[in-house]
Amino acid sequence: MKSDLQEITDQVRTAEADHAGLHYRRVTDSARGCERGTVLLGEAIVHGYPRIGRVLALRPGLGEQFRSPFWVEEKVNGYNVRIFRYEGRPLALTRGGFVCPFTTDRLPELLDLAVFDEEPDLVICGEVAGPDNPYVESAPPFVVHDVALFTFDLMRLGQPTPLPAAEAYELIDRARLPAVTRFGRYTTEDIAAIQAIARRLDSEGHEGIVFKEDSARARRAKYVTAASAISDIQSTAPGLMEVPPEYFLGRILRLVLFLREEGLTRDAELDRRLGAAFLDGPYAAVEQFQREQRVSHTYRCRLRERDNALALVQHINQVSGHAIQVTLRDLRQEGAHWVVEFDRLYPSLNGLLGHLLHGGLLYD
Amino acid sequence: MKSDLQEITDQVRTAEADHAGLHYRRVTDSARGCERGTVLLGEAIVHGYPRIGRVLALRPGLGEQFRSPFWVEEKVNGYNVRIFRYEGRPLALTRGGFVCPFTTDRLPELLDLAVFDEEPDLVICGEVAGPDNPYVESAPPFVVHDVALFTFDLMRLGQPTPLPAAEAYELIDRARLPAVTRFGRYTTEDIAAIQAIARRLDSEGHEGIVFKEDSARARRAKYVTAASAISDIQSTAPGLMEVPPEYFLGRILRLVLFLREEGLTRDAELDRRLGAAFLDGPYAAVEQFQREQRVSHTYRCRLRERDNALALVQHINQVSGHAIQVTLRDLRQEGAHWVVEFDRLYPSLNGLLGHLLHGGLLYD
Repeated sequence: MKSDLQEITDQVRTAEADHAGLHYRRVTDSARGCERGTVLLGEAIVHGYPRIGRVLALRPGLGEQFRSPFWVEEKVNGYNVRIFRYEGRPLALTRGGFVCPFTTDRLPELLDLAVFDEEPDLVICGEVAGPDNPYVESAPPFVVHDVALFTFDLMRLGQPTPLPAAEAYELIDRARLPAVTRFGRYTTEDIAAIQAIARRLDSEGHEGIVFKEDSARARRAKYVTAASAISDIQSTAPGLMEVPPEYFLGRILRLVLFLREEGLTRDAELDRRLGAAFLDGPYAAVEQFQREQRVSHTYRCRLRERDNALALVQHINQVSGHAIQVTLRDLRQEGAHWVVEFDRLYPSLNGLLGHLLHGGLLYD
Repeated sequence: MKSDLQEITDQVRTAEADHAGLHYRRVTDSARGCERGTVLLGEAIVHGYPRIGRVLALRPGLGEQFRSPFWVEEKVNGYNVRIFRYEGRPLALTRGGFVCPFTTDRLPELLDLAVFDEEPDLVICGEVAGPDNPYVESAPPFVVHDVALFTFDLMRLGQPTPLPAAEAYELIDRARLPAVTRFGRYTTEDIAAIQAIARRLDSEGHEGIVFKEDSARARRAKYVTAASAISDIQSTAPGLMEVPPEYFLGRILRLVLFLREEGLTRDAELDRRLGAAFLDGPYAAVEQFQREQRVSHTYRCRLRERDNALALVQHINQVSGHAIQVTLRDLRQEGAHWVVEFDRLYPSLNGLLGHLLHGGLLYD
């Protein structure tokens, strides 16, 4: 009989990668029940985090998706990581299956790694969020500096499915892992209470909710707030030319359906916030271009080791593709950390603005 | 020596078409100085209307584009037509080179066709605008019902270039053709006066300006208002899924650069208008879907002949492609006219809304 590892290697597409002397393969296309982002490291398999479908209409969505009671948790706006230990080294993987030089560097500061002494095959699935992160431009209002980890699921090495929520909660509490807020166990009858949670999260600028069915099939769904839809539009502005057309329609539909679902009034203030979300980025881009003859966005984050900071910039360059240029701006020591600053630059937006602001014609 | 007609037939791609017993060919791709939309009808050649480049930054744009004084005219928000007479029949062509059943039907009501007795090889280039037109959802504020013609250029059969502006003005005035508003002759030194025109057009909700160099090379450029950028976004809402991503970036950049150029303040009211432009369409779409289980947009226009009304619906079906469905809704006599109503339906938006409003999941 073939091993799981052999099965995966035979059936899916993988790419080779390295991190600080560690050689691994990552699955680049989901196939045969093996998610994109699955990582093969020696004999270890860290399965990709399963994708969670989104409901845009809460009431029919819950009825359609869930047959049993479900747990309700907060969805945090950051980037997805899987944390595990391999040959004594704690590592953090990105959604795509790269060892993340930034998260891996910061692990001792993000959680108590002693959990892996008790649970050596544990995979902690979480969101890293905060203003000083290297990947996403927005941050939840409850992380005001640096970054923090919010565990939302646990997996085991070699297992493609997260642990049942109740079992995960018990382990998260016992190991005191930093975790997302839990709102409890509900049924589709509790729609009013769930809507109240969604409205509160929206008014506080939080991202949304994840639902986890309390059953063997471990079905999940997510639902986001109007505030999240607007925040997505806001933070996409500099990359406006790189997103597919359905990006904006999707966010606007989320916004419209959230308002109708939650019985919220569409008022002038909401229109103003949406308009501002579309205008802020391009407005700032034009101002920056007129000042500096280029548009770029600066990211800043801190790491414990200088080498990891350099590896981070190299990693981001590698995954960004040719539509984005990444350049190191500053690397300096501040207290116990190295602070790295790098710029993301969008050549197509810069080319277009240069042409237009020099009086060039556009044919459309 | 080959005739012009033979040259075109040899060198560019054409498609066959028919209108009420009239057989013609239209050029489907611009090539070799022959614009897309050029029409070959017997021995007659009606050249495509040349594309006019757009400046987004007025001050550098005028300096960059014009070496001589230029005429300034209003740009009207409608659809482009070329009107000419062939074997005694007045015909109107769309931009793409189809005989337009609607415009052709209405020609005797749009202008005094006696002009073609004096000028048999004249091609009148104009914009047809108004709420009751079959093509565009928006209309200028100065056409409150039905449609009107606004001549902006004159061409000659067989000639690819419009007449010089001064010559055209003289003929337009003599033949009393309905025409766009003219603001006069300016130089790049007159930037303040031109900005004042643009600001006034913007505050009145007009579309913008066309510049025509008063020289042998007949160079042109266009420039639109912030109001036009917002109106474009508003009227695109139901087709949001069908437009390329640069559509929105383009409009937002026009808006931002207009404000900066004209020294206008970006205020909460502008943000609100932009937000509303994005929200109105999807909001109405969801409401319509919940009421009628479909989203469609109804167009209405009036024609003199019943057959032309049916030919119009057939024509729109033909040019819309598979991304849009067109269905006849009503055809009735009102006074001297036939009023036709038809619906445009976007299958992809309807499919998406149906899925979402029944509680379906979206993976993104």
